[in-house]
Amino acid sequence: MPVTGTLRYSYLGPAGTFTEAALAQMPGAEQAERIPTSSVLAALTMVDDGEADAAVVPIENSVEGGVTATLDAVSVAHHLQITAETLVPITFVLASGQPMELSEVSSVATHSHAWAQVRSWAENVLPRVEYVPASSTAAGAHSLTTDIPVADAAICAPLVAEQLGLHVIASGIEDVPGAVTRFVLVAKPGPVPAMTGADKTTVTIPLPEDRAGALMELLEHFATRGVNICRIESRPTGSAMGDYFFSMDLEGHIREPRVADALAGIHRVSPAIRFLGSYPRADGKAQQMRPDVSEEAFDAAQQWVASLIQHG
Amino acid sequence: MPVTGTLRYSYLGPAGTFTEAALAQMPGAEQAERIPTSSVLAALTMVDDGEADAAVVPIENSVEGGVTATLDAVSVAHHLQITAETLVPITFVLASGQPMELSEVSSVATHSHAWAQVRSWAENVLPRVEYVPASSTAAGAHSLTTDIPVADAAICAPLVAEQLGLHVIASGIEDVPGAVTRFVLVAKPGPVPAMTGADKTTVTIPLPEDRAGALMELLEHFATRGVNICRIESRPTGSAMGDYFFSMDLEGHIREPRVADALAGIHRVSPAIRFLGSYPRADGKAQQMRPDVSEEAFDAAQQWVASLIQHG
Amino acid sequence: MPVTGTLRYSYLGPAGTFTEAALAQMPGAEQAERIPTSSVLAALTMVDDGEADAAVVPIENSVEGGVTATLDAVSVAHHLQITAETLVPITFVLASGQPMELSEVSSVATHSHAWAQVRSWAENVLPRVEYVPASSTAAGAHSLTTDIPVADAAICAPLVAEQLGLHVIASGIEDVPGAVTRFVLVAKPGPVPAMTGADKTTVTIPLPEDRAGALMELLEHFATRGVNICRIESRPTGSAMGDYFFSMDLEGHIREPRVADALAGIHRVSPAIRFLGSYPRADGKAQQMRPDVSEEAFDAAQQWVASLIQHG
Amino acid sequence: MPVTGTLRYSYLGPAGTFTEAALAQMPGAEQAERIPTSSVLAALTMVDDGEADAAVVPIENSVEGGVTATLDAVSVAHHLQITAETLVPITFVLASGQPMELSEVSSVATHSHAWAQVRSWAENVLPRVEYVPASSTAAGAHSLTTDIPVADAAICAPLVAEQLGLHVIASGIEDVPGAVTRFVLVAKPGPVPAMTGADKTTVTIPLPEDRAGALMELLEHFATRGVNICRIESRPTGSAMGDYFFSMDLEGHIREPRVADALAGIHRVSPAIRFLGSYPRADGKAQQMRPDVSEEAFDAAQQWVASLIQHG
Repeated sequence: MPVTGTLRYSYLGPAGTFTEAALAQMPGAEQAERIPTSSVLAALTMVDDGEADAAVVPIENSVEGGVTATLDAVSVAHHLQITAETLVPITFVLASGQPMELSEVSSVATHSHAWAQVRSWAENVLPRVEYVPASSTAAGAHSLTTDIPVADAAICAPLVAEQLGLHVIASGIEDVPGAVTRFVLVAKPGPVPAMTGADKTTVTIPLPEDRAGALMELLEHFATRGVNICRIESRPTGSAMGDYFFSMDLEGHIREPRVADALAGIHRVSPAIRFLGSYPRADGKAQQMRPDVSEEAFDAAQQWVASLIQHG
Repeated sequence: MPVTGTLRYSYLGPAGTFTEAALAQMPGAEQAERIPTSSVLAALTMVDDGEADAAVVPIENSVEGGVTATLDAVSVAHHLQITAETLVPITFVLASGQPMELSEVSSVATHSHAWAQVRSWAENVLPRVEYVPASSTAAGAHSLTTDIPVADAAICAPLVAEQLGLHVIASGIEDVPGAVTRFVLVAKPGPVPAMTGADKTTVTIPLPEDRAGALMELLEHFATRGVNICRIESRPTGSAMGDYFFSMDLEGHIREPRVADALAGIHRVSPAIRFLGSYPRADGKAQQMRPDVSEEAFDAAQQWVASLIQHG
Repeated sequence: MPVTGTLRYSYLGPAGTFTEAALAQMPGAEQAERIPTSSVLAALTMVDDGEADAAVVPIENSVEGGVTATLDAVSVAHHLQITAETLVPITFVLASGQPMELSEVSSVATHSHAWAQVRSWAENVLPRVEYVPASSTAAGAHSLTTDIPVADAAICAPLVAEQLGLHVIASGIEDVPGAVTRFVLVAKPGPVPAMTGADKTTVTIPLPEDRAGALMELLEHFATRGVNICRIESRPTGSAMGDYFFSMDLEGHIREPRVADALAGIHRVSPAIRFLGSYPRADGKAQQMRPDVSEEAFDAAQQWVASLIQHG
Repeated sequence: MPVTGTLRYSYLGPAGTFTEAALAQMPGAEQAERIPTSSVLAALTMVDDGEADAAVVPIENSVEGGVTATLDAVSVAHHLQITAETLVPITFVLASGQPMELSEVSSVATHSHAWAQVRSWAENVLPRVEYVPASSTAAGAHSLTTDIPVADAAICAPLVAEQLGLHVIASGIEDVPGAVTRFVLVAKPGPVPAMTGADKTTVTIPLPEDRAGALMELLEHFATRGVNICRIESRPTGSAMGDYFFSMDLEGHIREPRVADALAGIHRVSPAIRFLGSYPRADGKAQQMRPDVSEEAFDAAQQWVASLIQHG
């Protein structure tokens, strides 16, 4: 693994996970030293403490949903912003230290999220297999190379199986082909990345009240400004059952008036809203925009109101 | 009628109508020359042409609703703004040139709006009376003093009966006691009157599309900014059946951020919105305001967004 | 005037007005006796009292807006329903008893609504003319044939000028060509006319509260059921300034589940809602409908919920 | 463990977890045979296959949020309904097989959810401890009693430590005191439990479209019927990034018209909505209800509309 070092990127390790694959796709990856950590929180803390320039962490999986550890860690970390995102296709292999048949596998080690993504395959093909939880897919794989492997086989990324020289018993075993995980690059606050015309903005918004309509009123602020919501996750604040905040990705960039205006509107009803960054979309999909929420429409409206206040 | 003349106020005449009573309550009335006109449009045109400094016209009656002539004339007049309002209680008398009994009255002259407001009384007390339309309540009363009165009696304001020395046959004959008419003072555009904390703002808004939800979307712009609507009237644009504009009075002053922000939002979806003025409420009722739409909340939101754009 | 008499239709008279033209287009007109009345209220009262089978009254003009006398009379009449509508194009002539030139006309008689519709023409062509209010356009025309005409000329419907043998000085003098007035046939309550697939429903709805959002909440009941609003008029209830009811025409028929469901929803928040009838649209325009508000979608939803309540 | 056996309740095992504590609080628990399973899915499958009468599974934690395995398993299981819920306070102990000091603990085994709930405590008190994932808190504890314990100590429920005779090193170590987990009793579909006046209804609703406002439109169906949302979780459908369904708990019972009407409304726009049960609230909190969504208001509205359709 190249360690050149003008930049230091911490990431959810160990080496060989999908997160490292994501890191390799991030801006600046070629010059970056890669620092694996044992948890999302640890990766983010290194940035906060100045020991890394940015962290790469998973935020959302197309099958399993939001990565709650990241959502919660990012939302409480007051001095971080997301500056980039990337997508990594998720595919799994069943691998063993020594060549063996499927029928010989009586226990498999993997991370619980990976296990969830091969559940149906495992129930069909290995109905009586024992599941051994591992702290990461790579950790499960690494264990196979030790003197005391925790299981007969591991479910892991193809890359790690290759790096470790494991025997691949089965591949493409994920229940839902085409699954993708989204990773974000998290840095200290600073200038927001330039607007590209195909951007996303991430925010967290505490629900101001526990009543019918409170969420709806929040969403109206986006609807009246034509701001699409690409992702919405409810997360408990932890203070009481039924006390939520929402983590959302919005189409558009904070420098677009429609986004700025919607966030200002939300700030009035939920002042603890947090801005986690505006950054280019990984899929590069340019946004459609209604004419009434274009920059021109906002500018015309502002000028009109300003002229009224001056001259009636 | 005093003609002092530093100011010239045109008004819907003739002399002695409720409109003149309203004029007397307007700011500056003591120094104002009073110029009666034959129509609302004529009164407004004098202002537009520089022949009057302001016009006093009725805009809304608590029984009959909006005065459509005024609503339409004001909304097409591109160079006028409302600077004050006043309320005049509406009460009617039945008056004749010579003393007569109720039973002797076989025809009455009055304006159709006044007639509408005494309809039930007339049906009960004068079931077979002939109604003679007059161009104003005062005109009907004046006719009684001429050689060829148009009717036996007139329904008019108490003041005009008194001024003309008419015989009052019956008084307080309005069907709905407590009726009130609202009058506005209309001037050329200029600095908006100062904010008093108990203000109204008048606008006209063309409905952008003829479909379910278009009006609702307009109203959401007010609701999300906590701006109450005191009056809403739909008026045809005249171009096609079902093509409307709305005339509205809003609580609050254009210098309040919640009002300015709501109008800016509407301007994006209906750019032909017209601002007709912010002015003190006649009833002086101070507005209640939700904390999330206070000036402080708007300022805090603006500063937050501005700081995001700068430093992330 | 044909008097055949299996049906008796009262109408806003006198003979020769646009209302009579509308009557002639109504279902059953050929067999109907035509009974002119002096007011909208009188025409409706005849129906209420059993002296007429139905009344023909104007309800809306594409230039002048709602006919408030009808809106108010219909909305307080608790025992009437609208069973048909028709549209009559509105065009005016200037007519005199004896041949005369435009320049010789110094006074014109007409109804104030007609006057409003020729205002600009009159200001341009007859700037100094005296306006003499008449109780109807036909009444103004009839006066010209009497010994004491109220004016030099009248502004009226072409038909009445022709019927009375008047001299037409100018024709097509309306300010907005293409104006149309909508008339309704009002009968006692009874079976609702059959659904045709191109229907309208008329209701009046008191605004439940005077606050931001009350009207919006009403409209949401229509929006969530995909019911378009063709006409919306605010009218004062007469009890206090700012106290409104809304008169609305909706697309669709009370037998359509989307309409029935929307009205039931409104009834919960504004129980004094009044149903004034479902009837075929005069323009025959078939309605577009979103799939989620089709009869099938409502039926499927009802069956689903019913099955849940039974078997979980 | 009492095995009496008129009922068989499967539950997320092993014995001694919080889930078993929840089971003990469920209706019918005294007569129920308790069958531990290795996963939520396995517990539910036993019900589906007729091998258990009901399953007890965790659904939501006040700190960690929704239990996604349960949300997903319940939502795809087409033949199950929730019939009861219960709340279990969550408190943890650090326990070891043999008496030891905190400073001697270099590795701890527990379930990742439990680990998440003691994270801060662990970072402060055991900063260098190695975390060993276990398939449940009880499994971690049980391992300490075997010949090859996976760790020095376990973080588990007080009950299991007591049952196994473990040494409690520290107790009450959860980061957020007062955390509660909610468990549900899941049975085959059948008659919905009787309405108690303090009920909840659980549904899953696929988001019909990926656009601004789609979620808002769903929520409007609840808002217009005054139905509060107690819990809302977004979950990926697994088919594509950004493709969601929502899992929601609503206040009220399917036999209440406001709930039935709201669900029927949602069914029209999202016909794949699933009803997962109406059942008494664990907290017994009686619901507040706006007058316009009471059973009386719905009945009055239905009768009114029905009478219109019949007699106009």
